[in-house]
Amino acid sequence: MKAPPRIAIGRCEHGKTNAISDVKNVKVGHVTLIKGEGKLIPGKGPVRTGVTAIIPHEGNIYKEKLLANFCVLNGYSKPVGLTQVRELGVLETPIVLTNTLSVGVAADALIQYMLEQNDDIGVTTGSVNPIVMECNDSYLNDIRGAHVKNEHVVEALKNAHSQFEEGSVGAGTGMSAFEFKGGIGSSSRVVTIGNYQTTVGALVLSNFGKREDLTISAVPVGMELKDWPGKSESEERRGSIIMVVATDAFLTSRQLGRVARRAGLGLARTGGCAYHGSGDIVLAFSTAQRIPHYQEGLLHLKAYPDNELDPLFRATAEAVEEAIINSLLEAETMEGRDNRVRYRLPEEKVLEIMAQHHRLKP
Amino acid sequence: MKAPPRIAIGRCEHGKTNAISDVKNVKVGHVTLIKGEGKLIPGKGPVRTGVTAIIPHEGNIYKEKLLANFCVLNGYSKPVGLTQVRELGVLETPIVLTNTLSVGVAADALIQYMLEQNDDIGVTTGSVNPIVMECNDSYLNDIRGAHVKNEHVVEALKNAHSQFEEGSVGAGTGMSAFEFKGGIGSSSRVVTIGNYQTTVGALVLSNFGKREDLTISAVPVGMELKDWPGKSESEERRGSIIMVVATDAFLTSRQLGRVARRAGLGLARTGGCAYHGSGDIVLAFSTAQRIPHYQEGLLHLKAYPDNELDPLFRATAEAVEEAIINSLLEAETMEGRDNRVRYRLPEEKVLEIMAQHHRLKP
Amino acid sequence: MKAPPRIAIGRCEHGKTNAISDVKNVKVGHVTLIKGEGKLIPGKGPVRTGVTAIIPHEGNIYKEKLLANFCVLNGYSKPVGLTQVRELGVLETPIVLTNTLSVGVAADALIQYMLEQNDDIGVTTGSVNPIVMECNDSYLNDIRGAHVKNEHVVEALKNAHSQFEEGSVGAGTGMSAFEFKGGIGSSSRVVTIGNYQTTVGALVLSNFGKREDLTISAVPVGMELKDWPGKSESEERRGSIIMVVATDAFLTSRQLGRVARRAGLGLARTGGCAYHGSGDIVLAFSTAQRIPHYQEGLLHLKAYPDNELDPLFRATAEAVEEAIINSLLEAETMEGRDNRVRYRLPEEKVLEIMAQHHRLKP
Amino acid sequence: MKAPPRIAIGRCEHGKTNAISDVKNVKVGHVTLIKGEGKLIPGKGPVRTGVTAIIPHEGNIYKEKLLANFCVLNGYSKPVGLTQVRELGVLETPIVLTNTLSVGVAADALIQYMLEQNDDIGVTTGSVNPIVMECNDSYLNDIRGAHVKNEHVVEALKNAHSQFEEGSVGAGTGMSAFEFKGGIGSSSRVVTIGNYQTTVGALVLSNFGKREDLTISAVPVGMELKDWPGKSESEERRGSIIMVVATDAFLTSRQLGRVARRAGLGLARTGGCAYHGSGDIVLAFSTAQRIPHYQEGLLHLKAYPDNELDPLFRATAEAVEEAIINSLLEAETMEGRDNRVRYRLPEEKVLEIMAQHHRLKP
Repeated sequence: MKAPPRIAIGRCEHGKTNAISDVKNVKVGHVTLIKGEGKLIPGKGPVRTGVTAIIPHEGNIYKEKLLANFCVLNGYSKPVGLTQVRELGVLETPIVLTNTLSVGVAADALIQYMLEQNDDIGVTTGSVNPIVMECNDSYLNDIRGAHVKNEHVVEALKNAHSQFEEGSVGAGTGMSAFEFKGGIGSSSRVVTIGNYQTTVGALVLSNFGKREDLTISAVPVGMELKDWPGKSESEERRGSIIMVVATDAFLTSRQLGRVARRAGLGLARTGGCAYHGSGDIVLAFSTAQRIPHYQEGLLHLKAYPDNELDPLFRATAEAVEEAIINSLLEAETMEGRDNRVRYRLPEEKVLEIMAQHHRLKP
Repeated sequence: MKAPPRIAIGRCEHGKTNAISDVKNVKVGHVTLIKGEGKLIPGKGPVRTGVTAIIPHEGNIYKEKLLANFCVLNGYSKPVGLTQVRELGVLETPIVLTNTLSVGVAADALIQYMLEQNDDIGVTTGSVNPIVMECNDSYLNDIRGAHVKNEHVVEALKNAHSQFEEGSVGAGTGMSAFEFKGGIGSSSRVVTIGNYQTTVGALVLSNFGKREDLTISAVPVGMELKDWPGKSESEERRGSIIMVVATDAFLTSRQLGRVARRAGLGLARTGGCAYHGSGDIVLAFSTAQRIPHYQEGLLHLKAYPDNELDPLFRATAEAVEEAIINSLLEAETMEGRDNRVRYRLPEEKVLEIMAQHHRLKP
Repeated sequence: MKAPPRIAIGRCEHGKTNAISDVKNVKVGHVTLIKGEGKLIPGKGPVRTGVTAIIPHEGNIYKEKLLANFCVLNGYSKPVGLTQVRELGVLETPIVLTNTLSVGVAADALIQYMLEQNDDIGVTTGSVNPIVMECNDSYLNDIRGAHVKNEHVVEALKNAHSQFEEGSVGAGTGMSAFEFKGGIGSSSRVVTIGNYQTTVGALVLSNFGKREDLTISAVPVGMELKDWPGKSESEERRGSIIMVVATDAFLTSRQLGRVARRAGLGLARTGGCAYHGSGDIVLAFSTAQRIPHYQEGLLHLKAYPDNELDPLFRATAEAVEEAIINSLLEAETMEGRDNRVRYRLPEEKVLEIMAQHHRLKP
Repeated sequence: MKAPPRIAIGRCEHGKTNAISDVKNVKVGHVTLIKGEGKLIPGKGPVRTGVTAIIPHEGNIYKEKLLANFCVLNGYSKPVGLTQVRELGVLETPIVLTNTLSVGVAADALIQYMLEQNDDIGVTTGSVNPIVMECNDSYLNDIRGAHVKNEHVVEALKNAHSQFEEGSVGAGTGMSAFEFKGGIGSSSRVVTIGNYQTTVGALVLSNFGKREDLTISAVPVGMELKDWPGKSESEERRGSIIMVVATDAFLTSRQLGRVARRAGLGLARTGGCAYHGSGDIVLAFSTAQRIPHYQEGLLHLKAYPDNELDPLFRATAEAVEEAIINSLLEAETMEGRDNRVRYRLPEEKVLEIMAQHHRLKP
């Protein structure tokens, strides 16, 4: 279990382990690929990449789908599967995250994984809609090398557990954020909607941002650290961020779209600028209700009234903001292609900067 | 001309007057309606409302349209005219802002104003697409009273000038932000795209936010001021914000949609939470090129390549953020219906809070 | 009650009166404005316009909202109120149809009508989202004259009845379709979804199309009638069509969006071309469930599974197709501005053309 | 070169070869996979599938992108690459069509193909956005068998030629339409916009529709053929249609979205019903202008005024309608899994039915 948050964001109560898996039945698995070092030889290495899989519930997801929706904050991105999520409002596979040039492999592996679990697909029932999202880890990784193979995706799916690592792992292995080492981060919140206690959790794959922009809990930390070593060699920004939001709240897919749109608030508060080259996508799903693949007769659905959703909107923004910060705090310094180094965010220095600001806080 | 910014946001260079009218030819006009006091007698008063008009260029806008696009951050809102902007990518009338229940009157007045200037509309050519946007000022105003009349809209349009007031004026008269007095705010930035110097300006109608959320230049000012008098009497949040972004940059309507989506970053950094009841809309237009109503033959358009837009994205976020803060700083304390008072943001206290933080800044 | 369909479209069973009001509790009211003749004197006449109101249920619609959604087939259109329908998925007022330049007046009148019925709006609760849609009747009507007044809108709302006229009435008074007289048309279908019998009804305001394009029940009638008198004097096409679909089926707002998108199939089958200048909008709502304005606790919603919706999709396309044809068949020849005449579709001639084709039908 | 159209649709002039390749520089390549017969043994066969590639111009598409946009008519579909097309308005790879469960493989193959042609991708510049679209050919094909391999995709790309086959080839090998044999169909039109002659071409992958719905040139052919052998064994409709529209007209990406939306008219006129399970997607691109990947300074773009686009809208609808009919006329009877047979549309019988109707035509 993750240690208590070193830098807690916002005002909502944290979930038990401060991770997306605080939403019951959600699990996360990683495969981390690190091999070679030194000069980039395209196709050979160095390898700094991986796969992260999010399992939305413990059952057969194709047969018991979950309500879902998404939001494209900046569409310089190559997600797979979103068109059908918009039309039908459901998620029917796990969610796989990887590097940009491996989305084809990952989609194919996820399809094969689903076929194995469902021998009716393509025989007596329709097809399946795999969900894969990506960031570009080419700052450190030989992304042209196609180092992610089908078996890595399956392994990440099978690895999934309610306790999982963050930072430079899985799809986050080669990612950078604010010109520090980024990657996988997670956080959760518990809020009350009407009489119901609900949990919302976020998991991000962070790979965006300019050093100077970094803001932690409304403290302009990045400006203080702008001369810290490890800044990007080129000006071209190829960053992106994928944000996955899970909740056990009773919500329709329309409402999950509203929740997804609040993730951008959390992103903005970390200093995110949604630069041209950043593919910023949010996918939100609810575990509260399952939609059977073979449904007969009316579905009976529950939903909170929209005017009670404000606590959830706030909690989502906070969870995403903190997940991004956690992706920095949990990461380790990584050397990659062409001896480029992404340094770990210097936590003690950050805490020192924060402390000066914190005197002002209640 | 507005005084130099008391609290400058961000890192981009400010425009000459730090207002949307720094974009050449853009003008703003207000009509402010203040009448009566004391207990609300629906239909009678007190009146705390008005109209703000933005004239996008000095010519005949119907005959020489401007490229435009928009972004709906939260659609609990009643804008008029956006459907056609999405389809055709152009603005063909001035933009009118007013209170929520006066959008019908304002749309009608704007139509009549356009008919007067164009005797071909509805006779030998098509119709006209009026743009009206709104916030709900019922916290201070007798919004049911329909106090905005056609002539007020026309007056605001005719009043328009490159120098204009901000704060509790025009459509901003009865608006609140962060449980302080809000209303009209503006700001501008000058940035370089490739070899071209371009200006981007924002004008907001602010009417949103919880006290505790207010953040100014990454300083959590609202938490410090949470016990300052004038908080809302009820918990129900009916806020909204309209953001208008003007630029002289060469952009297609697709690109103006990208610019519009960056306004949300500025909003988020002020502490905006996009609560359920907040209608948060951004409209962006460019004055760089005019699209003739009677066009024969090919249009010749210029556009910056998308990968050069980052400075503009950043500048837009900053201008919107500062415009929101300016809507607070420029406002005056206002007493309205049922003796409710919205206090002016206590600027000295704010500067004092900021100063402590600023020691840390470079 | 309307006579049995003279030209029945499609294969689904018709509703009892073949009108949108076959969906229980839906009512329609008209105000028809016809005054003057001869040469157009802008602002004076001749007047060939009106208002049509659709009341979605018999209760207080603001307090008991209906699930709704829409589809923009071609956005050269000036609808009011759609932004909030997308965000919240509900309809909270009647739907008003009128001419393009009267949308402001109509929106204002509808707001006042809602205020009268709900004294909490703008005092102790939020605002209201009026729905107004339009077509451009300037081929026959002095559209610049602003002949639609607030009281006409209120009258149309109060007139509403489950039995209502079609053709050259209400908002349809001055409209043209396929260069014949168009206007209001309606049709309905009864289909079985799972074990449930449901009704879907369409009402259209038709004002689009070139003579040659007209197709009735897959018979290219327009080509046969291309030399029939009354073709447009100019080539400029200013047409549009508004389609309203009502159903008593259990559907979420996402599903109502899917239903709305099927209306375009009906439109296409009549020969509709979605020309540049045609604002083609579909609004769909369900009367099956009411969403309370003051809701406490969870909403319990019912919905058909998506894979059972095909009969409803087909029925919607058919009802819209037939409603368009009915708008022609029910219309009367109308002379308007500048002695322009829109002739009634010559029904006997059409039936004769159809008869030759019908020999082939089973 | 394709023979002259046996059944010509509509009123616009046809292009020289009546195919998408009449748009200069557009090429199409197929790989057809047919192997085995008899009972379905999932993973083994029978194989009735393939790949179709559309090459949008003869140069390096990544370095010289084309303006593009799309329209989702029904989103029960698994396209890859559309998110970025919406954001940036460009196409930067060829378009690959295949079966639903092979989209991962096809996306991966297309990525590798692009990497081979561009050694800067992932090293000194960003990533690449592959476009893959699909239909479900499981009625005849062992779709679970993953019979499409990377090399097949590359082969289809390399095969591409301005003269290409239609019908049961490439991605169309196993597809069905209106319960006849469907697959690949193409058609083109030449229209005048202002003073410019422009060409629009459509290529469809047809795999949708119920027998009774088939309508050819406004003749209800399907009703006449409803007892023709070869109807589906089950009621479940898993159909879809992918429509690709190419033009050499000067259009912005916004306008290409408008063009894409007109394809649905052509679809509707063939009797398409957009059933729940049908993923109906249109992608439109223009070859008129190239957007350099490495652009410095302003782009100079040309565009027709929107009010001159009606001929193009009509031509697009017609080309798509005829492309669908051609996909039937060019197909050959195919036996697939479990001895299911999709028969070729009986052309003589169709012509006979048409002839009776044609007597009525001018």
